[in-house]
Amino acid sequence: MQKGKSSIEFETPPVVTSFASVAGKKEGQGPLGKLIDVVEQDEMFGTDTWEQAESAMQKQAADLALEKGDIRRQEIRYLFAGDLLGQLIATSFGTVDMEIPLFGLYGACSTMAEALCLGAMTVHAGYGDRVLAMASSHFATAEKQFRFPLAYGNQRPFSATWTVTGAGAAVVSSGEKYAQNAIARITGVTPGKIVDFGARDSMNMGAAMAPAAYHTIRQNFEDFGVDETWYDRIITGDLGEVGSRILLDMMKQSGSDLTDIHMDCGMEIYDRESQDTHAGGSGCGCAAVTLCSLILPRIRSGEWKRVLFLPTGALLSTVSFNEGQTIPGICHGVVLETCG
Amino acid sequence: MQKGKSSIEFETPPVVTSFASVAGKKEGQGPLGKLIDVVEQDEMFGTDTWEQAESAMQKQAADLALEKGDIRRQEIRYLFAGDLLGQLIATSFGTVDMEIPLFGLYGACSTMAEALCLGAMTVHAGYGDRVLAMASSHFATAEKQFRFPLAYGNQRPFSATWTVTGAGAAVVSSGEKYAQNAIARITGVTPGKIVDFGARDSMNMGAAMAPAAYHTIRQNFEDFGVDETWYDRIITGDLGEVGSRILLDMMKQSGSDLTDIHMDCGMEIYDRESQDTHAGGSGCGCAAVTLCSLILPRIRSGEWKRVLFLPTGALLSTVSFNEGQTIPGICHGVVLETCG
Repeated sequence: MQKGKSSIEFETPPVVTSFASVAGKKEGQGPLGKLIDVVEQDEMFGTDTWEQAESAMQKQAADLALEKGDIRRQEIRYLFAGDLLGQLIATSFGTVDMEIPLFGLYGACSTMAEALCLGAMTVHAGYGDRVLAMASSHFATAEKQFRFPLAYGNQRPFSATWTVTGAGAAVVSSGEKYAQNAIARITGVTPGKIVDFGARDSMNMGAAMAPAAYHTIRQNFEDFGVDETWYDRIITGDLGEVGSRILLDMMKQSGSDLTDIHMDCGMEIYDRESQDTHAGGSGCGCAAVTLCSLILPRIRSGEWKRVLFLPTGALLSTVSFNEGQTIPGICHGVVLETCG
Repeated sequence: MQKGKSSIEFETPPVVTSFASVAGKKEGQGPLGKLIDVVEQDEMFGTDTWEQAESAMQKQAADLALEKGDIRRQEIRYLFAGDLLGQLIATSFGTVDMEIPLFGLYGACSTMAEALCLGAMTVHAGYGDRVLAMASSHFATAEKQFRFPLAYGNQRPFSATWTVTGAGAAVVSSGEKYAQNAIARITGVTPGKIVDFGARDSMNMGAAMAPAAYHTIRQNFEDFGVDETWYDRIITGDLGEVGSRILLDMMKQSGSDLTDIHMDCGMEIYDRESQDTHAGGSGCGCAAVTLCSLILPRIRSGEWKRVLFLPTGALLSTVSFNEGQTIPGICHGVVLETCG
């Protein structure tokens, strides 16, 4: 149950029984395009504002996850969801019609992992047979929230990432009751603490988050008494090129070579050569969409037997940034295993 | 365990073993002034910005909750915390030094209940022996975030509330292991769904939140098979005068007279006559401070045997408001019982 200093091991692992991903046009043109359930060509998703578009995308992902799993809305006991926007408005307006009790979460781009951690903990404890874990981001809402008006056309350094327009939703179900529908087992979690290495460059968030990823991986290894050979893949959320390099260096210096097994959702979701996304993708939707299009299917097929999924978040706001604060990072770890 | 449609009943109830409250000068001058642990005269809490002040206040509340309970930081396995600010910066910078894995939460002013729900669920399931639940708000950060620059000196309608400068922190511990230190038992929770009655007036958030409180109370009664006579007090978070009146009317129309047992933290924390706070207090800190200064001591003493604690949140941001969206509400319920 409690494992080591910070982790939890589930005796009867909760299972992911359904999942869905919805994303925008640019993501559809990327390497995961064919794996994403719905690629919407209209970035407004038929609504009047960017924020409503993001809400519509969440709703679509949630509805589709239920539909694909042949699950009625009433079977979902709790919803664990979040997004990047101030006061989580994408989530509030995206989930209001579902009429399911909501735990609103904010972990910046680590939110999908936070939702999976709490969802698995809830289901494993018997508080519900099924819950839904979800996260989203939208390029235009994030730019408006954090950076410059789109029409301003500012230049972006190569260390900057591109916020993914996308939402991922996963139904987490009791491992006792729904083993026959299992796509992947959640065998353990390592919730992460905030790690602040003093990074201050909001155009290089990978560097700000890499130390948090490093810490959570080390804690996971220590708590479960394993090392990098235990996993087929160790997949971070949105460190991008720069952050991934820092993470691999830090791991190597501490004796672990992740070169062959590390992947980063931010580097999977776009084609760096042709899509001009610089260091890669970011946003809550980056890890959520990659999980629900690339990672879960490969675990279901048995291609990957055991994955450490590690969405990373940069804990800044325009207010904290403008007031000269650092950019602390956070990273939650979720151990996903095949059912085969 | 699962109780009714949305609630959870804890067989071996987790217990609150320590708590602390920190608040500002105005709150110190109010009816709860003598009950609040630390009343800070400097609204900047010795820092350079309002946001840092709120972070400092969170840190102080957390440290004090541990100190009062003679608990080492290392004994706290997880932290459940949140605030009102975009991207939860008060929490991120307030908790970074604690080095405890963090679940960042956003439930607007319902956040203290969300933290208590998840904290109790975590401890009861054995995922940790002790966790910390915390929430804060600061008048100046909230005005800056949601309304007008303070220097602008805008007028406020009587339906408007006053954001509490305050933080409350409670240590939730295993009922099996720490029964001897118990101040109150958390015997059940009723997590709430988003309820949208179409309210659009951000200067009357009580009206926006009252339907959510109504729904959660009704759900709690239904799930546990009880009515208003089951509780010594039913205490909402920050409905204020206007919202409380609406709630009592809605309850009466559905057959429950709460007149004698309903209290609202927003109406307890300020003196309406002398403090010019109009409809009452609001903000995550309102329910958190009232819990950790007034409510928990009265449960400890046995004056109140069973309390339904119902912090309420208004799910808006300046963006959603300016785009003409409604203000949905949310309310989570926590059943607190005496140990006597």
